[in-house]
Amino acid sequence: MAVTIKDIAEKVGVSVTTISRVLNNRGYLSDDLKKKVHEAMEEMNYQPNELARSLSRKKSNVIGLIIPDISHPFFGQITKHIEYYAYKHGYKLMLCNSLLNKKKEKEYIDLLRASQVDGIIMGSHTMSVKEYTSIKLPLVTLDRQISKSIPCISSDNYSGGVLATKLLLGKKCRKIAYLSGNLRLNLLAKQRHDAFIEQVSGKDVGFVVKQTDLNGFKYKEYENLVRELFEEHPDIDGVFASSDILALQVIKECRRRGKAVPEHVKVVGYDGIQIGGTDDLSTVEQPVKKMGELAVKYLLRQIAGEDIPLETILPVKLLEKGTT
Amino acid sequence: MAVTIKDIAEKVGVSVTTISRVLNNRGYLSDDLKKKVHEAMEEMNYQPNELARSLSRKKSNVIGLIIPDISHPFFGQITKHIEYYAYKHGYKLMLCNSLLNKKKEKEYIDLLRASQVDGIIMGSHTMSVKEYTSIKLPLVTLDRQISKSIPCISSDNYSGGVLATKLLLGKKCRKIAYLSGNLRLNLLAKQRHDAFIEQVSGKDVGFVVKQTDLNGFKYKEYENLVRELFEEHPDIDGVFASSDILALQVIKECRRRGKAVPEHVKVVGYDGIQIGGTDDLSTVEQPVKKMGELAVKYLLRQIAGEDIPLETILPVKLLEKGTT
Repeated sequence: MAVTIKDIAEKVGVSVTTISRVLNNRGYLSDDLKKKVHEAMEEMNYQPNELARSLSRKKSNVIGLIIPDISHPFFGQITKHIEYYAYKHGYKLMLCNSLLNKKKEKEYIDLLRASQVDGIIMGSHTMSVKEYTSIKLPLVTLDRQISKSIPCISSDNYSGGVLATKLLLGKKCRKIAYLSGNLRLNLLAKQRHDAFIEQVSGKDVGFVVKQTDLNGFKYKEYENLVRELFEEHPDIDGVFASSDILALQVIKECRRRGKAVPEHVKVVGYDGIQIGGTDDLSTVEQPVKKMGELAVKYLLRQIAGEDIPLETILPVKLLEKGTT
Repeated sequence: MAVTIKDIAEKVGVSVTTISRVLNNRGYLSDDLKKKVHEAMEEMNYQPNELARSLSRKKSNVIGLIIPDISHPFFGQITKHIEYYAYKHGYKLMLCNSLLNKKKEKEYIDLLRASQVDGIIMGSHTMSVKEYTSIKLPLVTLDRQISKSIPCISSDNYSGGVLATKLLLGKKCRKIAYLSGNLRLNLLAKQRHDAFIEQVSGKDVGFVVKQTDLNGFKYKEYENLVRELFEEHPDIDGVFASSDILALQVIKECRRRGKAVPEHVKVVGYDGIQIGGTDDLSTVEQPVKKMGELAVKYLLRQIAGEDIPLETILPVKLLEKGTT
């Protein structure tokens, strides 16, 4: 590790107390001595020890972020904004991928608490509510409501589901599929599914629901899911995919089968992520920047002991583009 | 912050020294007392203070990672692997996006040193060589060689450039474009460009080189770059894009112009990232998993005071798929 004030003291030939007095500008010190100490610090590349300061201040200025998988573009983009706002407020970000593994998530929470982070933003949860409510650290959840007592920031999944489904219904689709991650994960995203069911029920349209396995973001699995869908239901003419990544797989499968999008199959995604290839995709855009900003803001307010809203639901926006 | 041993001592009604003896299992202690202390710790949700331990061990078990932008899929994927291996070895990851901003990068380096991180993995650099060599912390660079004295991990950009260009030449392209980020950034990726130039020079094919502005990853900018390319050179029939994201933009622009891929225009990307929509893309795959693993491994070896190779170049692989 780095140079300490003991090293500086030895170099200058004075006591550690003297160095400390220079650092804190306390007591009488000759200009000559001050100059010598500062020169030695520069020469030896001395950095004040933030760790020691954290310990005495009882504040680490570190935020923990637990998400399922940083390589998923939605989490990559929201993490970018979270890091931006944390940095802006003088906080560093400890990044933890849970990979939706319960053991890893639990270990990370223990590790973050032991590291005295000032608070945690949770974008993943596989543990029980009891385990979360016992964390006893400022906590904000993203896109999942673990308990009514833990502040949660999300976008309006229900309205998003209504917008996407109505778009397909308005385009006269006759048989619509809803594709998503596993519904048992009990994320707020499940509301998109509920909205879909409500919108298609009682209407003269067929519908199908297909979901992936529990363990998340595997492109191969997405591919198989989409292939299965079209094998079992070749007459599908509308797909509401609950992520843009899934929607891109649908478009690819349509191409493989010679089905034109949007002429034969209309596709609407979800998230509004920006990666090449999604520009022409009809989708429901989540306000990731605002979500990241509020997650940081509300966590810092909690750290400061202020009251914050327990539930924040941000509006979503339908982007109608070339695939519907 | 969390419960301290002082709180536990008060609750049990013994001295802090006694609690410390229980924690470290030192001296004679009755089983009854030990039980009481452990019960109180459980009840009060006590966590040993890693910050204090770090300070006394002179080791924080934190690695800093500085990259341009976590929302770029290449960095999202390599970060996933870096986090995985760091965690496996008991290290936490501090995530820093430089956004290729010199001031932010410098501030982050100071912040990481002040936080006593044990080492830094650099996947971004905008500062001068002198500033880097003065960091005096274990350091590994990813995909960029800052100085011969700082260990660097990369994949074989030159061979990758040869493979991609030869693929297009072999498919009888008559006019080939090379598209990339800004070449002045002096990344190792520039070797792809050099390989391209060497391969096309002196052959009976036309070629064009186009690059983005310095400040990186803006999809809108990518879009304009590609549009410009086809406006200025409508006869282009082969494109070597130095990232998959750029390649997807090329494919989109071809579709917009009614040019069939690969019949009219052949496109090869770079990186081998996995996001929906890239599955069918011919590309040069970088071994991101291995790069992430080695970055962590070599940094930890450096932290342990061991010698490590100063230059590690991993092989790349041409994936020939549907776009050539």
